Amino acid sequence: MDIRVAMAEMGRAARDAARVVAAASVEQRNQALVEIQQALASDRDRILAANAQDLEAGRQNGLDAALLDRLAVTPARLDVLEEGLSQVAALPDPIGEISDERVMPSGISVGTMRVPLGVIGMIYESRPNVTIEAASLCLKAGNAVILRGGSEAIHSNTALGASLASGLSAADLPVEAAQVVPVVDRAAVGALLTMPDFIDLVVPRGGKGLIERVMAESQVAILKHLDGICHVYIDSEADAGKAHRIAFNAKTQRYGTCNTMETLLVAKAQTGMLPALVTALQEEGVEVRGCDVARVAAPAITIAATEADWATEYLAPVLSIKVVDGVDEAMAHIARYSSDHTESIVTENQATAARFLREVDSGSVMHNASTRFADGFEYGLGAEIGISTGKLHARGPVGLEGLTSRKYIVRGDGHIRQ
Amino acid sequence: MDIRVAMAEMGRAARDAARVVAAASVEQRNQALVEIQQALASDRDRILAANAQDLEAGRQNGLDAALLDRLAVTPARLDVLEEGLSQVAALPDPIGEISDERVMPSGISVGTMRVPLGVIGMIYESRPNVTIEAASLCLKAGNAVILRGGSEAIHSNTALGASLASGLSAADLPVEAAQVVPVVDRAAVGALLTMPDFIDLVVPRGGKGLIERVMAESQVAILKHLDGICHVYIDSEADAGKAHRIAFNAKTQRYGTCNTMETLLVAKAQTGMLPALVTALQEEGVEVRGCDVARVAAPAITIAATEADWATEYLAPVLSIKVVDGVDEAMAHIARYSSDHTESIVTENQATAARFLREVDSGSVMHNASTRFADGFEYGLGAEIGISTGKLHARGPVGLEGLTSRKYIVRGDGHIRQ
Repeated sequence: MDIRVAMAEMGRAARDAARVVAAASVEQRNQALVEIQQALASDRDRILAANAQDLEAGRQNGLDAALLDRLAVTPARLDVLEEGLSQVAALPDPIGEISDERVMPSGISVGTMRVPLGVIGMIYESRPNVTIEAASLCLKAGNAVILRGGSEAIHSNTALGASLASGLSAADLPVEAAQVVPVVDRAAVGALLTMPDFIDLVVPRGGKGLIERVMAESQVAILKHLDGICHVYIDSEADAGKAHRIAFNAKTQRYGTCNTMETLLVAKAQTGMLPALVTALQEEGVEVRGCDVARVAAPAITIAATEADWATEYLAPVLSIKVVDGVDEAMAHIARYSSDHTESIVTENQATAARFLREVDSGSVMHNASTRFADGFEYGLGAEIGISTGKLHARGPVGLEGLTSRKYIVRGDGHIRQ
Repeated sequence: MDIRVAMAEMGRAARDAARVVAAASVEQRNQALVEIQQALASDRDRILAANAQDLEAGRQNGLDAALLDRLAVTPARLDVLEEGLSQVAALPDPIGEISDERVMPSGISVGTMRVPLGVIGMIYESRPNVTIEAASLCLKAGNAVILRGGSEAIHSNTALGASLASGLSAADLPVEAAQVVPVVDRAAVGALLTMPDFIDLVVPRGGKGLIERVMAESQVAILKHLDGICHVYIDSEADAGKAHRIAFNAKTQRYGTCNTMETLLVAKAQTGMLPALVTALQEEGVEVRGCDVARVAAPAITIAATEADWATEYLAPVLSIKVVDGVDEAMAHIARYSSDHTESIVTENQATAARFLREVDSGSVMHNASTRFADGFEYGLGAEIGISTGKLHARGPVGLEGLTSRKYIVRGDGHIRQ
């Protein structure tokens, strides 16, 4: 069958299923999560066998060790998925709440109700656990979801999709509420991105190539981050101990994450702390690049940072350091080069901190804290569907609330407009 | 100069100006509104003369009386604009507020701060007063705006733009914070819609042709409504008096507005009220069309409603009536034909009302109230930049809050991630 026709049929079925899930009680949605958890447990052998097929094909296709590791489904990882389902089931219901209700001069009462978004399109790579994690969040928030994983994980995702279907059936919800695209045809992604009638939001998770393709082709709103070029700025009035600790942690706690610091901005009054910090970073294995002033202050920096460095997300043990006059130059640098993900200021001056917090236009702006905290779990969201560097709808780490919408609720008693 | 180059320069200047406006105090933003008000007063003769040019050209181009009326700027309308500026200045500051702040187990404090969106692109037709109304809301919310009105209003809008510039200068804010596109070249719209680096949100206001063009071409998020196919559903447990009053008001209070009822759904248990209601509507001059059952119940309905009627926004004294079994069929009809704008149920049964309020997926859902209430002023928003039928970012009538975003604010005291 033509892939676009098949995708449209999935979309239409998802749209219908979304109405049923949206109308279901939170008890029924939670029961679906528990039933999916039980299905995962009873389907374990089938899932591991399907994953073994993907791993074998991956080895034959020359996937590297890191990719094979991300592709692997193990009993321990299934334990984590099952535990995650319990945790999502235990979260408060994100929908139905009515807020800001008040009576207007006309006599009508006006408030807003949090409701599901509708149908989410999830496009992701490698890690098959995303199939279950994303589906559980979408269902909890009363949505339907279409899941399109990478071709390298097709058997694993199809097996996990069968467990989703068993769980939904057992909870008396339509299986079309969580559908795994069952084919590897690349055109399926293009079709997903061009069905605004059936898909309300697309969430891509994966490498830059995937995100860029989705951005270029999508006719549907996207929740995504492309880059994480995160900055720490050490202000002239920073506490040296906190500054050293935060900068070291923001760079070295993990290298491959989007909330890792890529550029350190240092007020020129603080260049005295650079030699010790650079030494500590280099001893940890970080390659440090610096502007001219930084290299004079810390001769251990032997590599000159170029214009390209300021615009690069290394995702690696590399750091660029720039010395600036003060907070204004730091904020101007951030406005120019930041990917709007996460920036942090280290200072003891509360007025300077307040300016930075207000004026820096990123999803997360921090004071005296490591950028590595930019994470849905660290923010108490209970779960994370993704991180958004856009300014509309949802921003920064996105939890269940980002999978909902708010509509107006108006109540009268026969009220008419004069 | 090439229009795309010129628009990109306006965009870049707006982006820079937006940073300045975002950092300005609310006192300075309010002062700009007051200065604009004073500039409008002192520029009155110049504005009226410019408008006379547009009106003369409009007459020569054969614009009809309704369009000429919308195009006209009069002393009375300038009074309204000046009063509107005072009202917007008096509204509470929509930005800067920090909410949901709490301390996490790690010790960091996490909250969200409401901040400006950045740069708004306003695309509109005919009514020159939109130039001032839209600019005042964008500036109040800390944004910059690029205003692109219709070619028929070019002299009026340019004159109003000069008053905006005087007011901004007098308040020591950059004039690029509110720029009127000074040329009529249609390609300017295309350029505005394809500058996602410089424009954060596009708000189109005008006829269906304009909205459809913007939807087709925009690479920037849009806040819009295309149709207002609004429904009133008279439930089997409706109070007959309220039902008659609400249905009559929702259709006849104004015909050309997007929140006017276009289809009336009536539970079959209530068809007894149809003859009197139909007579009242027909006496008011409304053409009533009905399904077969409705025409049997009220023989005064002489026109059969066709499939096309259910999907039509008449914007005229025309109403289609459909008899349904009950609330389930009513909600299914709405899910299929509604434009997601506004729907209302009339019932005394609170459980039925609660289901309708929760399950109907429109920007405004009402109980025992006329759809004509769907309006930013009636909702107490203080002002309205537009109405959105989309589910993301802002929904229903959109006031100042829809011109803002929320970012995460994290505070620590040297906290690092373990």
